Amino acid sequence: MLDVSEWVNSDPVDPQRLRGRVVLVEVFQMLCPACVSHGLPQAKKVHKTFDRSEVVVLGLHSVFEHHDVMGPDALRAFLSEYRVNFPVAVDRPVEGRSIPATMGHYQLGGTPTTMLVDRGGQVRHCFLGAVDDLALGALIGRLLAEDAPIGPVTMVGD
Amino acid sequence: MLDVSEWVNSDPVDPQRLRGRVVLVEVFQMLCPACVSHGLPQAKKVHKTFDRSEVVVLGLHSVFEHHDVMGPDALRAFLSEYRVNFPVAVDRPVEGRSIPATMGHYQLGGTPTTMLVDRGGQVRHCFLGAVDDLALGALIGRLLAEDAPIGPVTMVGD
Amino acid sequence: MLDVSEWVNSDPVDPQRLRGRVVLVEVFQMLCPACVSHGLPQAKKVHKTFDRSEVVVLGLHSVFEHHDVMGPDALRAFLSEYRVNFPVAVDRPVEGRSIPATMGHYQLGGTPTTMLVDRGGQVRHCFLGAVDDLALGALIGRLLAEDAPIGPVTMVGD
Amino acid sequence: MLDVSEWVNSDPVDPQRLRGRVVLVEVFQMLCPACVSHGLPQAKKVHKTFDRSEVVVLGLHSVFEHHDVMGPDALRAFLSEYRVNFPVAVDRPVEGRSIPATMGHYQLGGTPTTMLVDRGGQVRHCFLGAVDDLALGALIGRLLAEDAPIGPVTMVGD
Repeated sequence: MLDVSEWVNSDPVDPQRLRGRVVLVEVFQMLCPACVSHGLPQAKKVHKTFDRSEVVVLGLHSVFEHHDVMGPDALRAFLSEYRVNFPVAVDRPVEGRSIPATMGHYQLGGTPTTMLVDRGGQVRHCFLGAVDDLALGALIGRLLAEDAPIGPVTMVGD
Repeated sequence: MLDVSEWVNSDPVDPQRLRGRVVLVEVFQMLCPACVSHGLPQAKKVHKTFDRSEVVVLGLHSVFEHHDVMGPDALRAFLSEYRVNFPVAVDRPVEGRSIPATMGHYQLGGTPTTMLVDRGGQVRHCFLGAVDDLALGALIGRLLAEDAPIGPVTMVGD
Repeated sequence: MLDVSEWVNSDPVDPQRLRGRVVLVEVFQMLCPACVSHGLPQAKKVHKTFDRSEVVVLGLHSVFEHHDVMGPDALRAFLSEYRVNFPVAVDRPVEGRSIPATMGHYQLGGTPTTMLVDRGGQVRHCFLGAVDDLALGALIGRLLAEDAPIGPVTMVGD
Repeated sequence: MLDVSEWVNSDPVDPQRLRGRVVLVEVFQMLCPACVSHGLPQAKKVHKTFDRSEVVVLGLHSVFEHHDVMGPDALRAFLSEYRVNFPVAVDRPVEGRSIPATMGHYQLGGTPTTMLVDRGGQVRHCFLGAVDDLALGALIGRLLAEDAPIGPVTMVGD
């Protein structure tokens, strides 16, 4: 469940198109140093390493501080400069709260957070901070080895 | 000659206080990837390595693109998140031009640019892009070995 | 099939003890720069990341040049200095040939080479040169998701 | 004063040829991990960065452990594999002691050690362990700014 006010780099992502694939959601803020030095480069590497019919990478811009200077226009400039090409969702701001909707829903502790979603649309892993490439790769490999669901499922992005 | 509209992290820097010291000016934009990954970390290292009575580090935020999202408020959030503690000057915007005043004056080709100013206030070296730590250190060491000027001089920041 | 003249860091490894586990064999030479900078650190990371009941890491010292100075005594000093703790097999020298036995058997092209062996003892992947951590992790994850074999199998090390 | 049993990569270095230049002596052992990962790459960078008429880089192989496997033949194979092209002196072994002659003379605490010698042949700086490129560059720059000696001097290598 991504609660999104708008998408950058993409039309709104249709959850049906993600059915059967492993999804990595990189939760970040554009002015978060560890997101810029570690989280986003790792997400770009995942995007480049795996066949898109198997693994889909999405960004989620979850702004919980400095709201005035991390709006959608600033995000678009940032994504262009940093050559981030995968779809990025803007986590929906919530009136009167600093924490946006999806971040609150999953009770995420900060950024960067890396979420792994299985072929059936279930969030299976959620890491706050830096995850090593080797360990992340092993988790993706295990999820890829699982069967795709047969029936209708609730997908990330629904 | 730094033509500055405002200073962040500092009162306006008085050029008299820089007399006799070597000055490194790191010209950057907050959304420039090579500034974030190389130029600013190197400037922070220079700031930390040398005694401040010998070497002074200044930032110069020279915005020539994405002006709407790299204003002073965004810069302050950026400097706070990235723990940049040395004084940062905002290069004065010029009506009707994308290039700000100091950048235009020195005909700088982009960011990051690293400028080295000698004890007498003369710009002696100017590098566009990444300079290696070893080569930069050697240039600073040579400038430090020069005598300080005796009489009044025009300083960087005038 | 590892054809081994002696083991360092370990008693001879019993292939029965590897049954049901994924095995990474890091083929190296102690004076090979890319082995020292990439292959062995990655093998150490695999050794540290995974539970030993799931993934076993073995070194294979396959000397095909500078034979006089990369003998078992030199290897022991090297492994001690570099804190390599997993079992290392010495690839059996072959009279009159520069290429040792296991290296010749698998027609390996050089060092470092990383071999991945599945739970049933079959060599499934073989990389010459640097493999990225993310891609390697994904392959290990996929192999870990496979069922262990039920009956008797020919294991690596047999 | 380098007490040398033999030179690799070079004829014996004539101290007169070093007069007037800054000399960096990288003291290392071929099986010392920090020498391989930091000290020697830094020495190679110094060798590449500065004009040879200004800065000369020498290696000093000071073996104080694992003597049997770090003899001159092993050293030659190591230097060839690691593409070390500057002259390397073998620190003269001393009968009945583990510490070789030059290492004992300067009471060096281990490897890697980086020694900086001024244009007059005096050892001016001596670092055990990793020195940062920026700080090392600054020291070299300061030494380069010093005048060359006028009269005859005792040089490193005498």
